[in-house]
Amino acid sequence: MNYEKLDIADELSERRDLFELPAGMVYLDGNSLGALPRAVAERLEHVVRGQWGHDLITSWNRHDWINLPQRVGDRIASLVGAGPGQIVCADTISTNLFKLLSAALGLQEGRRVILSQEGNFPTDMYMAEGLQALLGPEHCEFRAVPASDLSEALGKDVAVLMLTQVNFRDGSLHDMAAITREAHRHGVLVLWDLAHSAGVVPVELDRWKVDMAVGCGYKFLNGGPGAPAFLYLAQRHHEHARQPLCGWMGHRRPFDFEAAYHPAPGVQRFLAGTPGILGMAALDAALDVFDGVSIQQLRHKSSALTQCFIEAVDRSALPALELLTPRHAERRGSQVSLAHPDGFAISQALIAHNVIVDFRAPNIIRFGFSPFYNRFDDVRIAVETLADIMNRERYKDPRFLRMQKVT
Amino acid sequence: MNYEKLDIADELSERRDLFELPAGMVYLDGNSLGALPRAVAERLEHVVRGQWGHDLITSWNRHDWINLPQRVGDRIASLVGAGPGQIVCADTISTNLFKLLSAALGLQEGRRVILSQEGNFPTDMYMAEGLQALLGPEHCEFRAVPASDLSEALGKDVAVLMLTQVNFRDGSLHDMAAITREAHRHGVLVLWDLAHSAGVVPVELDRWKVDMAVGCGYKFLNGGPGAPAFLYLAQRHHEHARQPLCGWMGHRRPFDFEAAYHPAPGVQRFLAGTPGILGMAALDAALDVFDGVSIQQLRHKSSALTQCFIEAVDRSALPALELLTPRHAERRGSQVSLAHPDGFAISQALIAHNVIVDFRAPNIIRFGFSPFYNRFDDVRIAVETLADIMNRERYKDPRFLRMQKVT
Repeated sequence: MNYEKLDIADELSERRDLFELPAGMVYLDGNSLGALPRAVAERLEHVVRGQWGHDLITSWNRHDWINLPQRVGDRIASLVGAGPGQIVCADTISTNLFKLLSAALGLQEGRRVILSQEGNFPTDMYMAEGLQALLGPEHCEFRAVPASDLSEALGKDVAVLMLTQVNFRDGSLHDMAAITREAHRHGVLVLWDLAHSAGVVPVELDRWKVDMAVGCGYKFLNGGPGAPAFLYLAQRHHEHARQPLCGWMGHRRPFDFEAAYHPAPGVQRFLAGTPGILGMAALDAALDVFDGVSIQQLRHKSSALTQCFIEAVDRSALPALELLTPRHAERRGSQVSLAHPDGFAISQALIAHNVIVDFRAPNIIRFGFSPFYNRFDDVRIAVETLADIMNRERYKDPRFLRMQKVT
Repeated sequence: MNYEKLDIADELSERRDLFELPAGMVYLDGNSLGALPRAVAERLEHVVRGQWGHDLITSWNRHDWINLPQRVGDRIASLVGAGPGQIVCADTISTNLFKLLSAALGLQEGRRVILSQEGNFPTDMYMAEGLQALLGPEHCEFRAVPASDLSEALGKDVAVLMLTQVNFRDGSLHDMAAITREAHRHGVLVLWDLAHSAGVVPVELDRWKVDMAVGCGYKFLNGGPGAPAFLYLAQRHHEHARQPLCGWMGHRRPFDFEAAYHPAPGVQRFLAGTPGILGMAALDAALDVFDGVSIQQLRHKSSALTQCFIEAVDRSALPALELLTPRHAERRGSQVSLAHPDGFAISQALIAHNVIVDFRAPNIIRFGFSPFYNRFDDVRIAVETLADIMNRERYKDPRFLRMQKVT
């Protein structure tokens, strides 16, 4: 495989210069925390010193901080196939799931089940559990079934189907359009978690008639650690959807300070408290890297990177290493997961050799690929390093066995 | 009044140098958005370039991002009379109120009423309304009564009393210790909103046996626009309190990615989604200005500033201007509110003359005083400017009548 040639032919290769990347590091964890876009530090400096420091409270109007959740939401909308006015940037995925699940139950009178898939991302499950515990099983029941049983589980009691487009463990990709259509045939609303897909996998929220979605600012959108999340609600639900975290920012007239809550007309009613301007400004700046690139271009390169990686791993014929991710590019996101009984130690050895990956219990090494800053040569280095570590059993060094794992 | 002498005698005068303040501006809106501590921009630069940019995902461990909510929480704890391990920095006041109100209902079986005071901050009311709407009136009823009726309203059906220590409209200060004692005599838990008091008014959460509290990072803690909020839960409630926004950060072992939710042992169970590191790091840096200062010193100066201001306004004898804030220093926070039929235009004229105040409907001009960076000379300038604007009717300029008002 001529990796150099692939990098030369890569029409996105110059985008890498938009990021700060430590010299010598192969960063394959953009599916967990995206790298730093150069524009962010400068923007933050400007927001901190120029806006907060200089214009202080007047910045809410003068620099339109007050509409930042909608403005950033509309920028994200263009990356996930949504028309304007249907996405706000706010809070975290966890909190946004709670708002939308509550709203879904309210929209679906007579249906009380939240359906999901076993192995969905834990916080998604926990939030549904939390809602069930709060409302009681007669008003809300959370059910998680194996993926293969989802169709059968779409019963008349199901209010909403909550799924994640790309699975965090194995990187497999759901057919959002088909599943959404099928759920709708049963009168079930669909809530998609785009945490591992927004910004890297084509998504057509409007065209596929998705009802609700949430997504993450800090993975493929590169918004920084704990960047604010986003929330999509299709226009057709705006009038009737109500959510319980009805803070002042979701009020129709927040600065009239009325005693009673009157929801804002649009998706703004899903805002709660005061938006965190610094984190959201960082995300806003980070989104600049998408200017002039299509998701199709990103997807094309992403698929080529994961394909190259899988083929190189195959060629290395490393023992006891199992590919968990689908071999068909159209059935996976932008990550490749390999299982190995010593997966944790191998992941730590890779990190020690400056190939940054992450580990997921019990035995999964995840390799995430960002089409913005990962090169085909990164694939080469990663697989060569992996082969070296495994063939020479470098991962059996005791220092790789007990390191703490986080995120 | 010799303002210069007061500034010379002020033992906190040098703290002003810790802030960036625009030349010539008298900033009396620190009760809405605190000024920028100089340390913040540098810290953010370090967190963005040095941590995120250079150490990327490993920063969650290497720079202990993962415990930032607890570490910042413990720093705030020292400002509000709380021992360590009872406060986390997270989310917004609105969201934190929802968590705590839900928890309070769970702790108080057989009691379903959330009691508050008419005129409490709107988002506090809205969140209680939202919880009532979600649970239905048979499980949760929100009641707001006039302040004078609170004692009488502490019935056997009241689960929790939710009050704000300093009222956002008139700056009046509740006697937290006495009210908490009285509520406890009726078996009622107390949840205090410290938005307008944390960092400037003495609070003794532990000593006064407060059950729950929330507070704001962006007012007197100077954490920046939309800084994350905080949440206090007294140790004695940790074991039994459950909250519905049970995201992965509140899990006992978040990185085991278990299918079922098991709450963390302490107040960490009130965390939900991934913490916004940039905003929280800014708040962390901002808290440095409190090093080596006691809340008593801050309170002493704050009371002197508001007292000076009230006396100077009195001496100016401006027509139709009504003092809404209590004259007794121990009964007010760090803001003075003046009502006037043309309050909005007057507030805009003050701002145009570089005396930054804010306006609250229908007719209230708020003057907030930060003991860190406001000088006694600011009082002089503010009152002279106010008198000039009113005596010469400068506020009747049409450009002051129609400006948009925000925050």
